[in-house]
Amino acid sequence: MTLRIIATGGTFDKHYDPLSGKLIFADSVLPGALQRARIAQDCVFEPLMAIDSLDMQDHQRQQVLQSCRQSAEARIVIIHGTDTMRDTAAVLGAAALAKTIVLTGAMVPYLSHDSDAFFNLGFACAAAALAPHGVYIAMNGQLFNWDNVTKNRRQGRFETLG
Amino acid sequence: MTLRIIATGGTFDKHYDPLSGKLIFADSVLPGALQRARIAQDCVFEPLMAIDSLDMQDHQRQQVLQSCRQSAEARIVIIHGTDTMRDTAAVLGAAALAKTIVLTGAMVPYLSHDSDAFFNLGFACAAAALAPHGVYIAMNGQLFNWDNVTKNRRQGRFETLG
Amino acid sequence: MTLRIIATGGTFDKHYDPLSGKLIFADSVLPGALQRARIAQDCVFEPLMAIDSLDMQDHQRQQVLQSCRQSAEARIVIIHGTDTMRDTAAVLGAAALAKTIVLTGAMVPYLSHDSDAFFNLGFACAAAALAPHGVYIAMNGQLFNWDNVTKNRRQGRFETLG
Amino acid sequence: MTLRIIATGGTFDKHYDPLSGKLIFADSVLPGALQRARIAQDCVFEPLMAIDSLDMQDHQRQQVLQSCRQSAEARIVIIHGTDTMRDTAAVLGAAALAKTIVLTGAMVPYLSHDSDAFFNLGFACAAAALAPHGVYIAMNGQLFNWDNVTKNRRQGRFETLG
Repeated sequence: MTLRIIATGGTFDKHYDPLSGKLIFADSVLPGALQRARIAQDCVFEPLMAIDSLDMQDHQRQQVLQSCRQSAEARIVIIHGTDTMRDTAAVLGAAALAKTIVLTGAMVPYLSHDSDAFFNLGFACAAAALAPHGVYIAMNGQLFNWDNVTKNRRQGRFETLG
Repeated sequence: MTLRIIATGGTFDKHYDPLSGKLIFADSVLPGALQRARIAQDCVFEPLMAIDSLDMQDHQRQQVLQSCRQSAEARIVIIHGTDTMRDTAAVLGAAALAKTIVLTGAMVPYLSHDSDAFFNLGFACAAAALAPHGVYIAMNGQLFNWDNVTKNRRQGRFETLG
Repeated sequence: MTLRIIATGGTFDKHYDPLSGKLIFADSVLPGALQRARIAQDCVFEPLMAIDSLDMQDHQRQQVLQSCRQSAEARIVIIHGTDTMRDTAAVLGAAALAKTIVLTGAMVPYLSHDSDAFFNLGFACAAAALAPHGVYIAMNGQLFNWDNVTKNRRQGRFETLG
Repeated sequence: MTLRIIATGGTFDKHYDPLSGKLIFADSVLPGALQRARIAQDCVFEPLMAIDSLDMQDHQRQQVLQSCRQSAEARIVIIHGTDTMRDTAAVLGAAALAKTIVLTGAMVPYLSHDSDAFFNLGFACAAAALAPHGVYIAMNGQLFNWDNVTKNRRQGRFETLG
């Protein structure tokens, strides 16, 4: 099985910039994280964009969809900001591709102490390998269907609707 | 869904002891790791033993089996040393419980820079949630059936047989 | 010798807040850092304030001076934001206390991968123990007199004047 | 001021080897640590040997002495295992070079969570810059003269004699 991992930015991939004192995007942490994970199978990394998901526009969600559509691999993990992860998942879900697509991200940057990022990456990779075709969000140690998930912003975690 | 996580020791849970200069077992890293993972679902942690898997005896594998048998949760992750992970998996596999049991561990201790432990934990949790009843080993970003896996000691990674 | 360590905030002590996605102040990292440093001597920790140094007002610099003046310990390390570290150093320098006062901070938060904070803390503690009475800035592996230092903002490092 | 940093191995520089499950020496962590410290001054790194200090022989201590003697820099930090740090310090102390030589090390490897290594490196660099000519041991946030220090093995810390 070959897996495609598409990076779009988000908290997962944020770096502290010592010059501005702000969190910015620089070289993606994903290649290093995948090596550290000691993944033995083939794994294609696609650094598609590096943006805060609050800044993601419709045409960029179409780009993500395009990458999934064109992917030779039927099992895809997308690293994405948490704030609009559900919106991108909805665009992908509506397209109903014959693929297993798992969106994940992080509540704390990979490069910060106490980050959930590396756990989420592992969870998402297994979900992409095992779940039936469909679009999912993997956060908080849970796999959600794209049409039954919301981010509880006050508590900082994902939940099923209703 | 409720998940049970059983710790047995192994590289995953090794600490550096400044007095002896050796790697030892101390308080398990698992409670901290699970909190860091921001798992929202119920998760029962069972610190069963803390040993090097090369030292694991038959009666201790029976203890692991007993814990799985008695577990109220049908989805179980076992943290285990990699060297005899396959042997414990075989004991559990032969018992054919109506549960999904995923053994995982680490090639580098959780507390060391560049450890694969946290990724493996995430991978194993998703596999435990998604895979059908059976006994599995989750290592190197791959899920192996208990009866078709071996540790390639020279390369330091798990592979299917033949 | 007893050492006083006064925390005022700054990049050194910033935490990533998963709810707001911003860097904030929470419980100081200093007590944990001092324990990790395995300091054997007596060490008094004074969490005076927790602010960004760009927000530090005159009355707050007076508070820092007051803490130094009242300190029973003649050797003091102050954790401070880098942007106005020199301004606080100037206030302390003008007071000409019979004490050795070393200001330090970090270009990257202690809790981030690749942070210089822990090195700077060690450097500042040694400088506080060894330098004659006076006010100093310890950054970039160098000890500067308070009246001959500037932060090169473009390069993100401290230098002597002219 | 230019500083020379001589690596000899010791706990500071130990790596976990996933193949053997043992702590070994590999590429020194020092070049990375010095970059992370954002040291602005010139800094010469000399990887002299990479051994456990319990294995250090007389001829190797003579090598360390030779490196110090030949050093163009009068300020030297030596990274050394803690168990026989005092013995090497005694050899260097007896030579009475007109240089400031500071030996340091770590109780926990640099690459492990909760390591004191990076703090000790900062402490030693400041001590090398500030202390008068002589040979010192910098551990536990304290600077010891080479002829008045012992490692309390039971407590895992350095103390003055008597």
